[in-house]
Amino acid sequence: MGIIVQKYGGTSVADALRVRNVAERILYTQNKGHQMVIVVSAPAGKTDELLALAKGVAKNPCAREVDMLLATGEQISIALLAMAIDDLGGKAISLTAAQVGIKTDGAFQKAKITEISSKRIKEELAKGQVVIVAGFQGVDEKNNITTLGRGGSDTSAVALAAALQADVCEIYTDVDGVYTADPRLVPNAKKHDEISYDEMLEMASLGAKVLHLRAVELAKKYNVPIRVRSSFNENPGTVVKGGENLEQGRIVVGVAHNNKISKVTIARVADKPGVAALIFTKLAAAEVNVDMIVQSASKEGLADISFTVSKDDALKAEEVATSMMGELSAGLVERDDNKAKISIVGTGMLTNPGVAAKMFESLAENGINIEMISTSDISISTVISCELVEKAVQTLHAVFGLDK
Amino acid sequence: MGIIVQKYGGTSVADALRVRNVAERILYTQNKGHQMVIVVSAPAGKTDELLALAKGVAKNPCAREVDMLLATGEQISIALLAMAIDDLGGKAISLTAAQVGIKTDGAFQKAKITEISSKRIKEELAKGQVVIVAGFQGVDEKNNITTLGRGGSDTSAVALAAALQADVCEIYTDVDGVYTADPRLVPNAKKHDEISYDEMLEMASLGAKVLHLRAVELAKKYNVPIRVRSSFNENPGTVVKGGENLEQGRIVVGVAHNNKISKVTIARVADKPGVAALIFTKLAAAEVNVDMIVQSASKEGLADISFTVSKDDALKAEEVATSMMGELSAGLVERDDNKAKISIVGTGMLTNPGVAAKMFESLAENGINIEMISTSDISISTVISCELVEKAVQTLHAVFGLDK
Repeated sequence: MGIIVQKYGGTSVADALRVRNVAERILYTQNKGHQMVIVVSAPAGKTDELLALAKGVAKNPCAREVDMLLATGEQISIALLAMAIDDLGGKAISLTAAQVGIKTDGAFQKAKITEISSKRIKEELAKGQVVIVAGFQGVDEKNNITTLGRGGSDTSAVALAAALQADVCEIYTDVDGVYTADPRLVPNAKKHDEISYDEMLEMASLGAKVLHLRAVELAKKYNVPIRVRSSFNENPGTVVKGGENLEQGRIVVGVAHNNKISKVTIARVADKPGVAALIFTKLAAAEVNVDMIVQSASKEGLADISFTVSKDDALKAEEVATSMMGELSAGLVERDDNKAKISIVGTGMLTNPGVAAKMFESLAENGINIEMISTSDISISTVISCELVEKAVQTLHAVFGLDK
Repeated sequence: MGIIVQKYGGTSVADALRVRNVAERILYTQNKGHQMVIVVSAPAGKTDELLALAKGVAKNPCAREVDMLLATGEQISIALLAMAIDDLGGKAISLTAAQVGIKTDGAFQKAKITEISSKRIKEELAKGQVVIVAGFQGVDEKNNITTLGRGGSDTSAVALAAALQADVCEIYTDVDGVYTADPRLVPNAKKHDEISYDEMLEMASLGAKVLHLRAVELAKKYNVPIRVRSSFNENPGTVVKGGENLEQGRIVVGVAHNNKISKVTIARVADKPGVAALIFTKLAAAEVNVDMIVQSASKEGLADISFTVSKDDALKAEEVATSMMGELSAGLVERDDNKAKISIVGTGMLTNPGVAAKMFESLAENGINIEMISTSDISISTVISCELVEKAVQTLHAVFGLDK
C-alpha cells in the first residue's frame, strides 16, 4: 500500500495525553500496511506565546528572527510525537523542514514552498519509520528558516503529499469534516462525504475555516485528494477532490458566512472617469485588501462608492478614504463595522439559472436587506447586517434543501 | 581589530530586560571596532521545562528526539537576542548550529564537536552583522541535531573561537571570575587576574563550577585565551591562558571542594590478586565512574576496599558491590553519602616539596580527619566528612596564603 500523509493541528498535540492519542492513531493506520508521513503544528497556544516573547524584547521584531523563533514551536511538537510513538513500541523519526529539504522563497512569515526533496523521507520510510515533519516552516535558498503564515501546516501537508505522490492527505482538525453550513448556526447542517476542489476553494475563501485556502489550491494543482477528519473520533470525514458537482443533483453545496466585514462608503463623489481607479489604487498601495465594490447610480453628477474590507483593515481603509476627500470633492466618509457576508456555493449554479433570484427572494421574504452583491461562476455573495447572519444562513440552508 | 567570541549563559537571557542588557553590552563592544560572535544558552529553566515535557509523553524518551527537543531552547534565545540588537539599531543575525555548520559525532546528548565551518559566520561578519550562534548544539554527519551535554555552550564558544582564530573567548556568567576558593565559603577569597589552563582544568575537575571542563581542555588544545566575566558588572574577570604558574611565587592557586561525594566500602574481602580488578571492571560495566580508591592494609588475609563516586551514582555502586558479596566472600557493604572532597591546586607544587605534608598537618591540627587521599602533578585531594567542608576550605585557604 502507498503513502498516507496526515496533518495534526495544534489542539491535537496540546498536551501529553493528546500527543499519545495521536501516536496511537498513527500506529493503528501504519499497522494496516501504510507508509506514514505526519505533519504537525505547534502545540495550541505556543505560537502566540512565542510572539509575546518577541514583543517583549523588541517593539517591531524583525521578520527573519520571528521565523527563527516561531519555528521552534513545530520542532517541539515533532520531537514529542516521535518520542510518544517510540514509547508505544513504534519506530519514528522527526525532521525539521531544513532536514527534509522544504525549500521556500525568502518572504519571511508568508513564504511560499518552491521545492520539496523526497529523498530523506523516502529513506526513512524504507526503514519502516513513521516520518514526522515540522509543518509551517521551510528554508530559503540561503538556508534561513522561513514560515508559511497562519494555517501553513495544511499547506506543508498537501505539498508533501504532492511531492511523495501520496494516496491521500488527511487533515485532522477539531471538526468532523466539511458541512453545508457552520453547525453552530445551523443545527441540522449536513456533513459532505465529498466536495470538489473548486467548491472547497469558494467555501474557504468565503469564510468557512475548515481548510486553509492555499492548501486547497495546492491540492487542486497537484490533484492530491484531501480527507478532512476529526482527531477526536473515527468518523470518515469529508474528501476534497477533483471533479464538478460530485454529489449529483445538488446545485448548492454550502452556505458560508463571514461576520468580520466592514463597509466603507465615500459619499457624493464626482461621477467622472478615473475616480474609482484613483480610490482603489491608493487602497492597494496601503495594502488594504478590498473585497466587494458598489457604485450607486449617479444623481446630479454625484455618486456614492461603497466597498467592503476585512474588519482588521477597516481603520486603515477609512484613513485612506478620508485623506482623499479633498481630491475627490467627496461629501462624507462612513465606516460600518457591523457587516457580514453570506454566500452560497456550488458548481451546479453554472448550469442552473435562477439560483440568484431564489436567494435574493428568500432573503427579502425574511426581512433581510441586501446591501451589496457579488458573484463568481460558482458562488453568490451578499452583504447584510451582522445581527441577521444566523437567520440568513438558516433561511438559505433550508431554501436550497441542504438539510435533506 | 579582531574577532571576539562572547558566551552568555541562561541566566543572562532569562527575561526580556536581561536580553536587552546583553544586546547593549554586545553593541558597546562592537562599537569599539570588534567583530562580534555571540554564543547563547537556552533561557534559564527552559531545558528543564523541555525535559519535563519529554517525560510527560514517554517514560524513557529516545535520545535523538530529546536532542531535537532541547535544541529549541537555544534557538529561542538566539532569535530573541537578534531581535533585541536590531531593535537597538544594531545589525544582527542568528544562526543555528546546522546553519553555521557545527559538525559533531552522533552521540546524542553528549556529542563531541568534530568540525566547524567558518564560512557563513565570516560572510555575515563582513556585512557588519553581530553573529549569534546557538550554543550546546550541533549536527551529525546525517544532519541529525545533537547536543553537547550540560554546560556544552561553553564548549561551543571555545570551539568557535578556535575555528575563527578569535582574539579571545569571553564567558559571561553570574560570578566575577575564578576565585581562590568559593566566596560563599571563604569570604576573603581572592579573584585571580590570570590562571593557567592546567590549573583551571584541575579546579574544574575537582568541583569548581565556573567553567565547563571540556571547554578548558579545548581552549588549551587550541591555545584560545578565555576571559571569565560577570554579565552583571564591568569587572575584567579572570583570564585563563597558557603558561605555568602565571602568578609568580604562588604555589597553590585555589582550594576546590565537592560535597556531592559518596563513599562505598566493601569490608573484609579476601586479599588476593585480581580482587580489585574484578570489582572495578564490574563498576565500569555498570557505567559507574569511580574517583578515589583506598585498600586498607591486609589483616588475617582480609582487606577493606573503599572508593568514592558521585552521589548520583551511589545507589548503583552499592547495588553492584552488594551483588558481588558472595563472589568476593565479603563481610559487609557500606555506603556513606555524607562525604566531601577538598583539593588544593597549583602548578607550583611540581617544584615545591612539602605541600602535601603542610596540607595534612593543618587539617589534623583543626580536628579534620582525612579518610582518603589522592594526588596528581598539580593537585592534592582528600576526602573528609561533609559537615567539615567549610572549616577545611577556610583552613587551607589561610594556610597557603591565598587571602594575601
